[in-house]
Amino acid sequence: MKGFAMLGIGKTGWIEKERPECGPLDAIVRPIAVSPCTSDVHTVWEGAIGERTDMILGHEAVGVVEEVGSLVKDFKVGDRVIVSAITPDWSSLEAQAGYAMHSGGMLAGWKFSNFKDGVFGEYFHVNDADGNLALLPEGMSLEAATMVCDMMPTGFHGAELADIQYGDDVCVIGIGPVGLMAVAASALKGAAKLMAVGSRANCAALAQEYGATDIINYKKGDIVEQVMDLTHGKGVDRIVIAGGNVDTMDQAIRMLKPGGTIGNVNYLGSGDYVRIPREEWGCGMSHKKIHCGLMPGGRLRSEKLAAMITAGRVDPGKLITHKFNGFENMEESLLLMKDKPADLIKPLVIL
Amino acid sequence: MKGFAMLGIGKTGWIEKERPECGPLDAIVRPIAVSPCTSDVHTVWEGAIGERTDMILGHEAVGVVEEVGSLVKDFKVGDRVIVSAITPDWSSLEAQAGYAMHSGGMLAGWKFSNFKDGVFGEYFHVNDADGNLALLPEGMSLEAATMVCDMMPTGFHGAELADIQYGDDVCVIGIGPVGLMAVAASALKGAAKLMAVGSRANCAALAQEYGATDIINYKKGDIVEQVMDLTHGKGVDRIVIAGGNVDTMDQAIRMLKPGGTIGNVNYLGSGDYVRIPREEWGCGMSHKKIHCGLMPGGRLRSEKLAAMITAGRVDPGKLITHKFNGFENMEESLLLMKDKPADLIKPLVIL
Amino acid sequence: MKGFAMLGIGKTGWIEKERPECGPLDAIVRPIAVSPCTSDVHTVWEGAIGERTDMILGHEAVGVVEEVGSLVKDFKVGDRVIVSAITPDWSSLEAQAGYAMHSGGMLAGWKFSNFKDGVFGEYFHVNDADGNLALLPEGMSLEAATMVCDMMPTGFHGAELADIQYGDDVCVIGIGPVGLMAVAASALKGAAKLMAVGSRANCAALAQEYGATDIINYKKGDIVEQVMDLTHGKGVDRIVIAGGNVDTMDQAIRMLKPGGTIGNVNYLGSGDYVRIPREEWGCGMSHKKIHCGLMPGGRLRSEKLAAMITAGRVDPGKLITHKFNGFENMEESLLLMKDKPADLIKPLVIL
Amino acid sequence: MKGFAMLGIGKTGWIEKERPECGPLDAIVRPIAVSPCTSDVHTVWEGAIGERTDMILGHEAVGVVEEVGSLVKDFKVGDRVIVSAITPDWSSLEAQAGYAMHSGGMLAGWKFSNFKDGVFGEYFHVNDADGNLALLPEGMSLEAATMVCDMMPTGFHGAELADIQYGDDVCVIGIGPVGLMAVAASALKGAAKLMAVGSRANCAALAQEYGATDIINYKKGDIVEQVMDLTHGKGVDRIVIAGGNVDTMDQAIRMLKPGGTIGNVNYLGSGDYVRIPREEWGCGMSHKKIHCGLMPGGRLRSEKLAAMITAGRVDPGKLITHKFNGFENMEESLLLMKDKPADLIKPLVIL
Repeated sequence: MKGFAMLGIGKTGWIEKERPECGPLDAIVRPIAVSPCTSDVHTVWEGAIGERTDMILGHEAVGVVEEVGSLVKDFKVGDRVIVSAITPDWSSLEAQAGYAMHSGGMLAGWKFSNFKDGVFGEYFHVNDADGNLALLPEGMSLEAATMVCDMMPTGFHGAELADIQYGDDVCVIGIGPVGLMAVAASALKGAAKLMAVGSRANCAALAQEYGATDIINYKKGDIVEQVMDLTHGKGVDRIVIAGGNVDTMDQAIRMLKPGGTIGNVNYLGSGDYVRIPREEWGCGMSHKKIHCGLMPGGRLRSEKLAAMITAGRVDPGKLITHKFNGFENMEESLLLMKDKPADLIKPLVIL
Repeated sequence: MKGFAMLGIGKTGWIEKERPECGPLDAIVRPIAVSPCTSDVHTVWEGAIGERTDMILGHEAVGVVEEVGSLVKDFKVGDRVIVSAITPDWSSLEAQAGYAMHSGGMLAGWKFSNFKDGVFGEYFHVNDADGNLALLPEGMSLEAATMVCDMMPTGFHGAELADIQYGDDVCVIGIGPVGLMAVAASALKGAAKLMAVGSRANCAALAQEYGATDIINYKKGDIVEQVMDLTHGKGVDRIVIAGGNVDTMDQAIRMLKPGGTIGNVNYLGSGDYVRIPREEWGCGMSHKKIHCGLMPGGRLRSEKLAAMITAGRVDPGKLITHKFNGFENMEESLLLMKDKPADLIKPLVIL
Repeated sequence: MKGFAMLGIGKTGWIEKERPECGPLDAIVRPIAVSPCTSDVHTVWEGAIGERTDMILGHEAVGVVEEVGSLVKDFKVGDRVIVSAITPDWSSLEAQAGYAMHSGGMLAGWKFSNFKDGVFGEYFHVNDADGNLALLPEGMSLEAATMVCDMMPTGFHGAELADIQYGDDVCVIGIGPVGLMAVAASALKGAAKLMAVGSRANCAALAQEYGATDIINYKKGDIVEQVMDLTHGKGVDRIVIAGGNVDTMDQAIRMLKPGGTIGNVNYLGSGDYVRIPREEWGCGMSHKKIHCGLMPGGRLRSEKLAAMITAGRVDPGKLITHKFNGFENMEESLLLMKDKPADLIKPLVIL
Repeated sequence: MKGFAMLGIGKTGWIEKERPECGPLDAIVRPIAVSPCTSDVHTVWEGAIGERTDMILGHEAVGVVEEVGSLVKDFKVGDRVIVSAITPDWSSLEAQAGYAMHSGGMLAGWKFSNFKDGVFGEYFHVNDADGNLALLPEGMSLEAATMVCDMMPTGFHGAELADIQYGDDVCVIGIGPVGLMAVAASALKGAAKLMAVGSRANCAALAQEYGATDIINYKKGDIVEQVMDLTHGKGVDRIVIAGGNVDTMDQAIRMLKPGGTIGNVNYLGSGDYVRIPREEWGCGMSHKKIHCGLMPGGRLRSEKLAAMITAGRVDPGKLITHKFNGFENMEESLLLMKDKPADLIKPLVIL
């Protein structure tokens, strides 16, 4: 089979590989819609996870089951499925402790295009099919469904980590696709004032459609000052960090009320330290809580988020600004994520 | 001053009383909008809280501050305020334990038209003004604001007690004004399928507007069977009980998944026992959690819920189906709540 | 192989069976210490789980691994292991939702001597060996280790369900082996006053050794009155129910403070309804929380509890009052649990 | 009246002041036992809270009520009371949000020897007497009771912030008086392996008495390496930071498992930033949670912790290594805290 791969740091291309083998608990899936992710860009051009050779890219896919192992009970050949980007080992100690995404080691629930080939091939392998696949609901668009793999669970986890409660004032920093999902998620936990930090016009417009009450443009001044002004000097109750870099935490602590919570879901690709300003952190006594986390993966999570879409609570399909047909557009769609033209939020490739 | 009062069980009428006195922490408020509540009906005609003589009724009011005590810091004469129906003693041990509504004894945070005169008088007394008043936000309708006193916090507390999470299947039992707020609250915690149990057409329509995906009419068959059908035999993750009687819990347990949670905010006025069916409760091992509670009162809660209205998350003003002008309509509006005509959800009296 | 079995309701005896087969994820274990449980008594003589024919009894065992499936990674033949009484399917939706003990249906994580043969045979089968076995720590007594299968996790879960916090006044109802573990667990969450309800002298003495500050003998008067006296009329913050029957909840609600929590781990074998007294439950508004649950099973739980024993926090081996050597004593040890002589807490059979 | 005061940064001495006035909610208390705190040292010699002139020092005191305001209900002249070091405004928005210690601003629940005179005077003022005093239980030693003001609630809050669960492996960094209380608190939440980091022999011995299983001496090598060795490379589940400086967080993150929690209660007096190592924090996706906080103050907290002492769960009086009689020893006792001789843990002055 062929697959679109990282040939080495900085290089991509098509390769030929053996179709993966299916263990007794596993499934082989043929993708029907995939989406490249900023993580793929980090992986290839920034070497974020280190050297990889001839590794097929991609971790966001909806597909058709082509083969299942002998112990798989709930899925069969021909089923159309949403595949979680994070596919934990569910009987691991980490999963039993409530942190399945870290099964096998920190972040090791992330397997596609990390420890094994990703989903940008003719076929791909899914470990623990019963635990990690979810049926594609009847009538759901591929645009929306593909966002259930990673963008929606990551953004929604940000709002969970920030522990948003009814009537909280919330700031979401970053309004790329994950940040936009965090905005929708914050509104769906009952945020009151919901400030979204970003600069691109199409993202700002969609943030408002998803529930942002205020857009804060970091190009128009210090975001801490803008948030403090909008909250009459009080700061916010909760913050979701879905963009920025290692310096963003400093800003977040400064705009957070005592007793408030920060939920970071932004992948921090460089820098030695994330820094907490000592005084604004109350000399270590402020009750300003700092949470972070990789999205929870697996079947239940996909089913729950898909059910929210079916119920009409949110349409993550609105993130898709660029749509392609055919494998031959994999490279172009990935380069879009790398180059980020002004009108891009997220591309989709239908196969 | 005059006030509309319970003269004794089963009897109401206008009485003359001394204007209440203002202690150092207190405020005297003149109501500008009030709403009668089903609790007033329970109090007068069902003797729910026992005998009371010449007690002014009412606990839902928006008003103007007429006087403040010497220790009050944040409110002044002339301020327009939302008054929480529940006005705790905030330095009590119960408040320090997180249950301010039970300060001074179980349910004793409820003082208006219970332990002291209520808000259907020319003036009324508010204990701990700094802790229990909230400024009426600029531009907020009196319809919406008056619902912040009791209907909205009670319904929203139901969704909190039921611990609704993203993508949960939820059933709200009862779609009177509190149940309708619980429907809105459930959607605002990210419920997926959201079933609302009720029979009145106007309530059903508003439930759908607030986010219900399915209406279950108890007149058309057993509600447990209907819920099990709609969930393909699985039952629901969470239930808010906002109506019914002591037998409703039995139904709720039967339609709840293991690990699920029930949040009851319905005042149970009669019957000796609320019954849990042993087998469906897993012989005491099902992890089906039973929570209940009086709404949290006080200033912060009112401010947070009002901020949600300002942010456009929900409009509780839609509950108001009947609007009156002038004190002389107090009795008629109360009788509406007693007689519950088909087109009634909630009346408001502007003063 | 031979096994000590339930032949039918009311009848036990030795039977011959095929040694169980080992699937790719499973293990076959030979028991080296087992303990009969009151549940076995319920199963045989009360027909608690319905008719069963020639089903080997028992679910508390420490043993030696005799065989492992091809996919098992962390255990090998010859390993000495603690086997959890509850052996969930870890990739199930219920496990992903945090309720592994209900994987496959309410209570269905309980498989031994329920859906398949138990541990009172020469060999027994363990599903998902990596997820459900735990290595027996060096130097741990078989007395203590066998209590990690069921008694200790059940009692400790009671204290978790009751959500005990530093300085809470706690009542543990029932001081059989599970209740005694709940007493130790309550002290190990920082309970202050810790009242234990029971009547047997040896249990009362051990309850005090495990941390009870007061023993309440139900034969000496109403337990609600005794608790209210000991708490100067205030009631308790938390209650663990580890004994009694369907009427015990009524007592628990009456002695619980508003805002308090009940954790039930008592198997309720008969009666149609568990009843909540309406008025004492604050007419459904008391914030008196009712939790219940089957013990969490699996490897991590066993490892964590075993680590507490190793660290010297608690010695559950003290529960063992009667010790036997050899399979031939299975029946006598089970009959002890049925007849409950005055000096019995829990028997152990070394094989 | 006279008081032992900070005259300015770096200077202490006795001063004369007017006896404080008692507002309607307040009490005037005469101390009978006081203890100087490292915070007093920070305040005077490091200028931690900025310049202060003629401010009476001290915030740990047990005393006798000399006067109460007209609105005080639960305390009367002559009552012997434990006075919380943190005395919140209980009707404030912060208290209603669950963070009373930040009422009036971050950390502003700390009033003694910060915003007003402390307890090292002949008399001192307590705001909201009903909310902030607690009766000294009959028979409790002054040694133990005085530790309920600050040392015990601070250390115990560390274990709460770290969210310790049954069987967790825990590291407590720092075994001064607060760290020692954190060790006891960790054991009283059911920690398994409990590693305590410190170098002083008497503290190490008391740590073991309070439940530490391992002592880690930072003088004998890198503490991260030592913890990783003791946990076979896995790291710990929970960490309480009760000592060190702004660099301690870096070490804590490195020794913490994914999904683990850090609870900091150490006052960080200098340095611009607390630093989180990016890679070991899983590039912002590790679920390593960072919590911190000032101790919760007030009456309920004091009552709960005192009840634990009465129940025999812990004896914080063991912290007292140096005991003085008479006001004239205030200076000597404070200098002890400053100079920290090898045999010191905590001094007490009986008045």
